Amino acid sequence: MKTSQRGQVDPFIVMDVMEAARKAEAAGRRIIHMEVGQPATPAPKGARQALARTLEQPLGYTVALGLPALRQGIAALYQRWYGVDLDPARVVVTPGSSGAFILAFSALFDAGDRVALGEPGYPSYRQILRAMSLEPVGIPTRIEDRYQPRPEDLPGDVQGLILASPGNPSGTVLRREELAALTTRAAALGVSVISDEIYHGLDYGAGFHSALEVTDDVVVINSFSKYFSMTGWRIGWMVVPEPMIRTVERIAQNMFICPPHASQVAALAALDCVDEAEANLAVYAANRQMLLERLPQIGFDRIAPPEGAFYIYADVSELTDDSLSFAAEILEKAGVAVTPGLDFDPRRGARTLRFSYAGASADIAEGLDRLAAFMAAR
Amino acid sequence: MKTSQRGQVDPFIVMDVMEAARKAEAAGRRIIHMEVGQPATPAPKGARQALARTLEQPLGYTVALGLPALRQGIAALYQRWYGVDLDPARVVVTPGSSGAFILAFSALFDAGDRVALGEPGYPSYRQILRAMSLEPVGIPTRIEDRYQPRPEDLPGDVQGLILASPGNPSGTVLRREELAALTTRAAALGVSVISDEIYHGLDYGAGFHSALEVTDDVVVINSFSKYFSMTGWRIGWMVVPEPMIRTVERIAQNMFICPPHASQVAALAALDCVDEAEANLAVYAANRQMLLERLPQIGFDRIAPPEGAFYIYADVSELTDDSLSFAAEILEKAGVAVTPGLDFDPRRGARTLRFSYAGASADIAEGLDRLAAFMAAR
Repeated sequence: MKTSQRGQVDPFIVMDVMEAARKAEAAGRRIIHMEVGQPATPAPKGARQALARTLEQPLGYTVALGLPALRQGIAALYQRWYGVDLDPARVVVTPGSSGAFILAFSALFDAGDRVALGEPGYPSYRQILRAMSLEPVGIPTRIEDRYQPRPEDLPGDVQGLILASPGNPSGTVLRREELAALTTRAAALGVSVISDEIYHGLDYGAGFHSALEVTDDVVVINSFSKYFSMTGWRIGWMVVPEPMIRTVERIAQNMFICPPHASQVAALAALDCVDEAEANLAVYAANRQMLLERLPQIGFDRIAPPEGAFYIYADVSELTDDSLSFAAEILEKAGVAVTPGLDFDPRRGARTLRFSYAGASADIAEGLDRLAAFMAAR
Repeated sequence: MKTSQRGQVDPFIVMDVMEAARKAEAAGRRIIHMEVGQPATPAPKGARQALARTLEQPLGYTVALGLPALRQGIAALYQRWYGVDLDPARVVVTPGSSGAFILAFSALFDAGDRVALGEPGYPSYRQILRAMSLEPVGIPTRIEDRYQPRPEDLPGDVQGLILASPGNPSGTVLRREELAALTTRAAALGVSVISDEIYHGLDYGAGFHSALEVTDDVVVINSFSKYFSMTGWRIGWMVVPEPMIRTVERIAQNMFICPPHASQVAALAALDCVDEAEANLAVYAANRQMLLERLPQIGFDRIAPPEGAFYIYADVSELTDDSLSFAAEILEKAGVAVTPGLDFDPRRGARTLRFSYAGASADIAEGLDRLAAFMAAR
């Protein structure tokens, strides 16, 4: 059978790095994982206990928008985190933030529409857009702008704009006034805005702001994957403008039926597990401090201000112009898996690397020792 | 913000019926559910126990194609059920069969492509196609063909064909020679075939055949939802031709990252829970027998041969030409939720109803009593 043009998306390079690391581990090597953006910790204990208590129940389909109690709990989070009074009816529970992007793109854009996004950025934005016959339009950002787009960078001929704060891979955060300027500019141009806030909760003093603080005319996407440490559970959410609710509900009914019920039960309980989430955050903060001290000593000194998330994005142009090979060499010689920048920036990512510090502190420390030895021997 | 044209899909009517039933229940009424296509039973006990034992582990992202052991277990099912020797590399674990359709449509079709499907049929085929800028092309089928398309019905100007056996809502099964004739005709026309086999395992003597028995050049879609009683777990699979594996892997990496990990753990264990699945099947068989005896006495006597799945599709054109209102009247007066045929057939479904018999036998018996009283008083 013939495959489609739109199906010819690029691989998610970090997943290929993970597979190479897995093969090395299968061959008996110990690999330090600084490539993948996921906590080493399980879902919060309270979340797992809540699910264990529910396992005798059928856990059949839920309504498409998600369990009402979960939607209410998520709405309450907006009061807690941002002081925003959010109607739970605007909250849509999704199969991960991935599912939220599929729903948002279906609801907002028609085939051929163009959607702007900052480079560097999360690679799957680009690939999901392509698989849905949409055209990603990269906005090259500048390190002096903390790798975030300026309002005047927004092209006039796009239908959509994806914002990400804290950014992946940069970890940089949009200030409230920057969010206001970007969304105001987009509204003036008739451009629909999607604000990816999946790393909210993970900040190190810079704070974080939701696009909902500055406008209701935005689709906000978030997830239980990062702050609540629930990656593999595939449970996320979106907040949509009131007039979009019924459209998104119909698409969700048909495209997903419902988000995974067991994950919804666990996520609802996770909302109350703040102590555990904050304890994880303290580990990331310690890891981040280690990296900020040692990476420059080792030779990785051109980095974006790591304000949030659990990544450090390094400009390695003085070391290589082939980040794929460089990352492969680091995996091979140092046994440390890192992500080549090409995943995030098709133009300039051949000269960048992303280090994730979501792992355990002992592993991060060992990873740094190995990187130091590797760079010293180079 | 402006919503898209393609996002204006029809509601999944059965989910609106469920919501109306839920409201009646919230108001204190007892409703018998013969609308929704899901077992009343939980996931198999062995599946739930396996998950309970795993809840201490991180359950992070798995590889995009799914846990290798689960892919192997699914491949082994093809040997057990059909005598087909299937390479586990061709098995892709998906977030429900819904996720499998999104992956298949992305991998096979470009915006504007036309995809044929039998009417009546599962409504979400049509809506997912639309949301992905594809054009559903209905093939009206005949009750004398058991509501399945004939090879000569396949239009020459389509790029895809969706087959479903057992069909939903019809419950009818394609014979092996019919599968061969349909796939041969499609291949001759250069049409890609997707075979929806989600109700396999649920048959009442007619047996069932996979399209993989007659060709490797097909995308087969299946799920743990029905036979294994795991609807809300959102875990399904597809079998793809070998040359498509890498394309589907890349799309899955980007669109879904991975299927829900906890559901994968449960599904792997479910594969061994044959006794429990067969016990559920015995309940459906008893329910089916009740319906076959009593529905004609009550006044629903024009039904498709109910060979598989857990549905009976009834032609009610002598009773109504507005199945939506008729179903609402049955819910209101009899307290029985049934699905209007319009969900399945936009042209002729105003004169049909679908009865699901996936529920508990006592409920089905009470539903029949209520339907009898309702029809007698009409």
